Amino acid sequence: MVVKCHGFFYFCPNIDIMDKLALFQQIQQKSSFLCIGLDPAVEKIPAHLHREADPLFAFNKAIIDQTADYAVAYKPNIAFYEALGPKGWESLQKTLDYIPKDIFTIADAKRGDIGNTSKLYAKTFFEYMDFDSVTVAPYMGQDSVSPFLEFEGKWVILLALTSNEGSENFQQFKNVEGKVLYQEVLTRSQRWGNENNLMYVIGATRGEKIEDARRLAPGYFFLVPGVGAQGGSLEEVARYGMNATCGLLVNSSRGVIYASSGRDFADAAKREAIALQQEMVTYLDRYCR
Amino acid sequence: MVVKCHGFFYFCPNIDIMDKLALFQQIQQKSSFLCIGLDPAVEKIPAHLHREADPLFAFNKAIIDQTADYAVAYKPNIAFYEALGPKGWESLQKTLDYIPKDIFTIADAKRGDIGNTSKLYAKTFFEYMDFDSVTVAPYMGQDSVSPFLEFEGKWVILLALTSNEGSENFQQFKNVEGKVLYQEVLTRSQRWGNENNLMYVIGATRGEKIEDARRLAPGYFFLVPGVGAQGGSLEEVARYGMNATCGLLVNSSRGVIYASSGRDFADAAKREAIALQQEMVTYLDRYCR
Repeated sequence: MVVKCHGFFYFCPNIDIMDKLALFQQIQQKSSFLCIGLDPAVEKIPAHLHREADPLFAFNKAIIDQTADYAVAYKPNIAFYEALGPKGWESLQKTLDYIPKDIFTIADAKRGDIGNTSKLYAKTFFEYMDFDSVTVAPYMGQDSVSPFLEFEGKWVILLALTSNEGSENFQQFKNVEGKVLYQEVLTRSQRWGNENNLMYVIGATRGEKIEDARRLAPGYFFLVPGVGAQGGSLEEVARYGMNATCGLLVNSSRGVIYASSGRDFADAAKREAIALQQEMVTYLDRYCR
Repeated sequence: MVVKCHGFFYFCPNIDIMDKLALFQQIQQKSSFLCIGLDPAVEKIPAHLHREADPLFAFNKAIIDQTADYAVAYKPNIAFYEALGPKGWESLQKTLDYIPKDIFTIADAKRGDIGNTSKLYAKTFFEYMDFDSVTVAPYMGQDSVSPFLEFEGKWVILLALTSNEGSENFQQFKNVEGKVLYQEVLTRSQRWGNENNLMYVIGATRGEKIEDARRLAPGYFFLVPGVGAQGGSLEEVARYGMNATCGLLVNSSRGVIYASSGRDFADAAKREAIALQQEMVTYLDRYCR
């Protein structure tokens, strides 16, 4: 295991583990709650990188080099690697190994299956690959989620309210008490995990929904996709979603990594990351309390 | 594309495509609606196979050789391959390539993500690997499912009612009209696909639930896990679930592939497959109408 927890020793009873406070320390140190989505589509990678032995890794490496000072998390979307077969998994492993060890890593895989299968997925992402966290779909319930929660120091990021149009179809399904499905997911799953091993995907396109999710899970971290390309406002997310330990990881994928399609792609990504981080300084100061 | 549709030409306007009737023809030819789950856990594979260059493939190859006459579908559970990294994906590809082309193949992956990501997953399983179908989780709604439905001749197998204990947590969430979530998934998703590109996972542990699902989706195929190791009764599944074109693929994984842990594992798998197929003859005769 690598040392993940910085700061003074008495803040870190287990220095191997990135818990909620260790994550908050990273956020404070960098004045950033930015997560960068590493979703390198082959057809979008700058042409000159295709001459590299591993174009995906070359792309990610350059992005990481230029943005690591401004991001507290990286989130590879597993689909982009899986689509290339065995070579894609090698690119993913190299990328993960290259990410600085104090940065939180998220396998965006949206897994979820019966117990023994979920356990295998957990072993893949937590032991074989050593990600800090994996995104999990809640549809199959507790025994599909719990196997991921049994790995010490690792996190489940459970889909609650997603930012896509189809989130209306089932996540808003309402029971007799007026409670909708994503609220049930948010409240029921808190019996399975805690604030140090469970966070939630909460889509960023509607401020009042984020406020509602925060009411139901006050102390939990939220991973918020949908800012930028998907139309969410960072200010609104911070205003309605922030808590005393920040409680937010806001993801940007395309807006950062495809800021330029030319040879300057990594510099352009850096400019975008800095712009987001600078905005975050303001909101941390204003809303983190 | 490979030729999947057998029988007379005038039954097969598109001989590339395994549609509902082509699948039913396979079921009639073999008098079987058996799906075999290819879930080869490294620690459960007979010891002598570990000397092979690719133990997983060697195991699957022997199972397929001995059971292909009695099964109409094979369902590799992707977790078991992914857990081995790039080598696992190679074993999976070799397994898929080895399955006889008239047998329906299911990538049990339970994917589901925003549109562009679901499209990538679909390309992985349908183009890169040429599976006939993939299991998909419904939580994120229409735009997470539809990208899989756009591939001609390919199928989505959507999770509706699963057989695990946790299926109680959210799949039974009830709205004001008394409709529960899995029923909403079953009815709403029929607007997105049709009986030739969409089927449903319906867990086998409760007969009355299968009857209910059949009422809501009369003409659709169901993939039924949970018979055997998970406790479901094959007779009950057939009695409550069968329709005029059979409409069932009943899966057995551990009960077949781990029937013996010794050198006779493939022969033992054959015996189990034959026993299930023989039982199925009776039910096809009795309930397929």
